Amino acid sequence: MRARPTPEAPARVVLLTDFGTADGYAAAVAAVVVAAAPGVLIDQATHAIPPGDILAGALALSRYAGLYPAGTVHLAVVDPGVGSARRALVATIDGRHYVAPDNGLLTFVLRGATSARLVAMSPTTHDDAAPTFHGRDIFAPVAARLARGEPVDALGSVVHDPVLLRLPEPARSSGVIRGEVLHVDRFGSLISNIPAVWLRDVRNADGGLVAVEGLTVGPIRRTYADVSSGQPLALIGSLELLEVAVRDGHAADRFGIGRGASVTVTSSDPP
Amino acid sequence: MRARPTPEAPARVVLLTDFGTADGYAAAVAAVVVAAAPGVLIDQATHAIPPGDILAGALALSRYAGLYPAGTVHLAVVDPGVGSARRALVATIDGRHYVAPDNGLLTFVLRGATSARLVAMSPTTHDDAAPTFHGRDIFAPVAARLARGEPVDALGSVVHDPVLLRLPEPARSSGVIRGEVLHVDRFGSLISNIPAVWLRDVRNADGGLVAVEGLTVGPIRRTYADVSSGQPLALIGSLELLEVAVRDGHAADRFGIGRGASVTVTSSDPP
Amino acid sequence: MRARPTPEAPARVVLLTDFGTADGYAAAVAAVVVAAAPGVLIDQATHAIPPGDILAGALALSRYAGLYPAGTVHLAVVDPGVGSARRALVATIDGRHYVAPDNGLLTFVLRGATSARLVAMSPTTHDDAAPTFHGRDIFAPVAARLARGEPVDALGSVVHDPVLLRLPEPARSSGVIRGEVLHVDRFGSLISNIPAVWLRDVRNADGGLVAVEGLTVGPIRRTYADVSSGQPLALIGSLELLEVAVRDGHAADRFGIGRGASVTVTSSDPP
Repeated sequence: MRARPTPEAPARVVLLTDFGTADGYAAAVAAVVVAAAPGVLIDQATHAIPPGDILAGALALSRYAGLYPAGTVHLAVVDPGVGSARRALVATIDGRHYVAPDNGLLTFVLRGATSARLVAMSPTTHDDAAPTFHGRDIFAPVAARLARGEPVDALGSVVHDPVLLRLPEPARSSGVIRGEVLHVDRFGSLISNIPAVWLRDVRNADGGLVAVEGLTVGPIRRTYADVSSGQPLALIGSLELLEVAVRDGHAADRFGIGRGASVTVTSSDPP
Repeated sequence: MRARPTPEAPARVVLLTDFGTADGYAAAVAAVVVAAAPGVLIDQATHAIPPGDILAGALALSRYAGLYPAGTVHLAVVDPGVGSARRALVATIDGRHYVAPDNGLLTFVLRGATSARLVAMSPTTHDDAAPTFHGRDIFAPVAARLARGEPVDALGSVVHDPVLLRLPEPARSSGVIRGEVLHVDRFGSLISNIPAVWLRDVRNADGGLVAVEGLTVGPIRRTYADVSSGQPLALIGSLELLEVAVRDGHAADRFGIGRGASVTVTSSDPP
Repeated sequence: MRARPTPEAPARVVLLTDFGTADGYAAAVAAVVVAAAPGVLIDQATHAIPPGDILAGALALSRYAGLYPAGTVHLAVVDPGVGSARRALVATIDGRHYVAPDNGLLTFVLRGATSARLVAMSPTTHDDAAPTFHGRDIFAPVAARLARGEPVDALGSVVHDPVLLRLPEPARSSGVIRGEVLHVDRFGSLISNIPAVWLRDVRNADGGLVAVEGLTVGPIRRTYADVSSGQPLALIGSLELLEVAVRDGHAADRFGIGRGASVTVTSSDPP
């Protein structure tokens, strides 16, 4: 699991936070990493997670973390419990390294994992930390140690019970699939918790009939261009989840709904 | 045209999208580039192009693309037609490489070009692509191949008719120049389509008289500091286009206008 | 003070501006640095400083600039006076290099400095500059020269009177500390100008009683988790200044106040 950077490929630390950039908090985290691991490459994945929104952070992280090559260090901080007794995690999951508060931020990354080794950071790493800025004082130094090639096991004690988000689960009964909206993305698309694998049959048959909060959207399409500009559509998004979008528009605004709204899929032909 | 990166200057891929950063889409694009070209440097130019706004993306790209050194790879994705039959372009323009949908995003870069070679990506590169996320599945892998030194010609068939935006053109008659606002920038400045070269005579004479939607702004000034704080002014912006701004203020809000508003320049002295 | 980059740790230029990213201005600055210093690493600290807000820029810069390793080049452009006669500064402060307009942007970095050497850029470096975009045409080329190892002294004439922001100063009298809010951060926290060192006595005694605009907040706490979700609290923030926050909430919205609001600390027990 050790991924010592070679001269050809310097270590890379990828940051995800809810800090925004305007206050300099995010840059302080980057600075601490760089100071402890000079030459490291910093990729800013995002600092625009809504403040304290662990679910949004967990979804965003799962969209890109596993696409980075083995050895990448992912530093993820959405941490409304900073300063409390919540644990701080260091993990190696499918060859990539993670540093994050133990609050569910790794939920989706862990869900899809083939191999995972997690430790809780040793309390001794906490001594000089500002109680309000663990991103800078605790997580960043550990990310730098990983970037320099230290193994996860050296950084804490093994953990088998990481906190996972309790998510609404989709359900199937008598041919109807019921789920809900997990997230609204920048384009206004409503991303549901209904996985593509559940939809194979209905897609192969008649495409199904998708509705949000009881309003009919239509069958499951392949891509935006399958409907006219301004029309709503259902499709399988890049996370392999059912989404409802409006071509060249904003589905959340169009339907006046957001996270938690109901999504149903039925067979479009009565049985 | 090949620009094999040297050890001293690793390949650099510069990203422009309308993805925002909060959903992890932009990071997924970066991740795919890095996975296929380890050690590449990622510069995030912007992910804040308004969703689907090809004109805004094309203008932003033209502000910096040609300032990067030869061999730089520009990956630009503002792609409302994703999944449709629109072509995907790979280009070498004045020594820099570009990957973008064929929808006008390269309009301003091509306008000013001395040399340009464009190909449409081979359909074989599309097979495993998610129909809603070509940025990740089609454009990013090709950007990585360019970053590794593959020539543009290996990536598709030559194209001579890239899509160009149909832009409103400024006009001159009887000493009056009529144009319109192309873009409002972050500072509220109204960027017109009237080129600086058209204004040489009037600037050398009396500075001209600029108006927006019939409201007088005044003569063409050199810089913001030529008027008092809070005052409107006309000036030549860094794109060599006529702009209307308010010093320490927001011209678009002040005049209540935006893209498409009329801009006129007359001689301030009657002839 | 010279910090010639080694192969192991390429030179790093860290950008702070109020340009946003959507217009391509920020990317143009990065491009010019890269063109003149190929292989340099670009860290985007932020481009989201509110337009023209020198105080916000100065605070953000001070949060991270000194955490970067010696030899880092900080390029900071919040420059409402662009094109006026204001000087352009190049500085080495505690081993890090800075390029910035001479308008107070370095105030907090200079306040905490052990060693500082500042020069005003030679006018000869200004000749081809667009009068509206010194970030691209003046500051960026100089940042690249610093990144290539040129010493500050080669770039201008020594300056002993950099512009410093005139800030409201906190005051102490008869056991009451009076300050004001300097900044509201992304989380809505009200960051005051009252330094932690002034609060040692009251914290060691009863924690003090903090109020904003006459509304009682309570004693000084250690961290957010010391109060219930939704409750306001006073604490020492990561800048070592007194802050007022709401746990999992937004203090500025809750109290309806912002920059300039009064903050007082009294002993919670009558003497």
